[in-house]
Amino acid sequence: MADLQRHRGNFRWESVDLLPYKEGDSDSCSVTRQILSDGRDGLPVQLRYFEIAPDGHSTLERHRHLHIVVVLRGGGQVLSGSEIVDVGPLDVVHIPSGTWHQLQATRGEPLGFLCLVHRERDRPERPGPQELAQILRDPAVAAFVRP
Amino acid sequence: MADLQRHRGNFRWESVDLLPYKEGDSDSCSVTRQILSDGRDGLPVQLRYFEIAPDGHSTLERHRHLHIVVVLRGGGQVLSGSEIVDVGPLDVVHIPSGTWHQLQATRGEPLGFLCLVHRERDRPERPGPQELAQILRDPAVAAFVRP
Repeated sequence: MADLQRHRGNFRWESVDLLPYKEGDSDSCSVTRQILSDGRDGLPVQLRYFEIAPDGHSTLERHRHLHIVVVLRGGGQVLSGSEIVDVGPLDVVHIPSGTWHQLQATRGEPLGFLCLVHRERDRPERPGPQELAQILRDPAVAAFVRP
Repeated sequence: MADLQRHRGNFRWESVDLLPYKEGDSDSCSVTRQILSDGRDGLPVQLRYFEIAPDGHSTLERHRHLHIVVVLRGGGQVLSGSEIVDVGPLDVVHIPSGTWHQLQATRGEPLGFLCLVHRERDRPERPGPQELAQILRDPAVAAFVRP
């Protein structure tokens, strides 16, 4: 990976591929992914830019690894555990280990954000029927999530 | 550190202190630092926002740990080894291990950027007289650096 990824406008970077949200996932066409850094020199992180199209959303999931999110474009809402927060440009969100979460572009504009994770990370887990029932027990969460 | 650091405008974040560039360094009053994430849950990184005032600069230094820089505000120039590159919003720069580098706000505007490093990192090294002479042997670099 080159030493400079130049931003070429409109949240695209030179020599950085526009990838699907998740490998092999055809359900999430409203989300794109660009890998801006894959770490090196002993810094075990991957820095990605995700963009959720207006009214789109990420998958409802949890994992052991921490996410650090920095919103760059537009805005929306983030579910993290039982909390739903509005987010806009330059807000920084930590999604803690083991927390059900979902990001939604609820403002009629894209939700674009940097997302920082460990290079060596566990696979996200989707809720099973029992876990989903548990998640939806909270009326505010039930009104928000798109399972 | 809270799960949400809300941006409260003008590149300041709620509940995030505005710190001097370096602990105990009174020479660098033109640079500020805010710690946005100190890692956790097994992600060994620190995410900082630095801002260099117009015409200011970071120290000329090198270290073993990698920097990943994402420009957020204004622009300027970055020396990395013998390369000097112009940078502006959303450009991503990797400063490799062991590379002399300096960032300067050369556009008459601030240069504000996210900087990502390992939590456990070595202390930066400043050039001694011999190393400085070596660095300044390149005329373009000599015209640029502020030792």
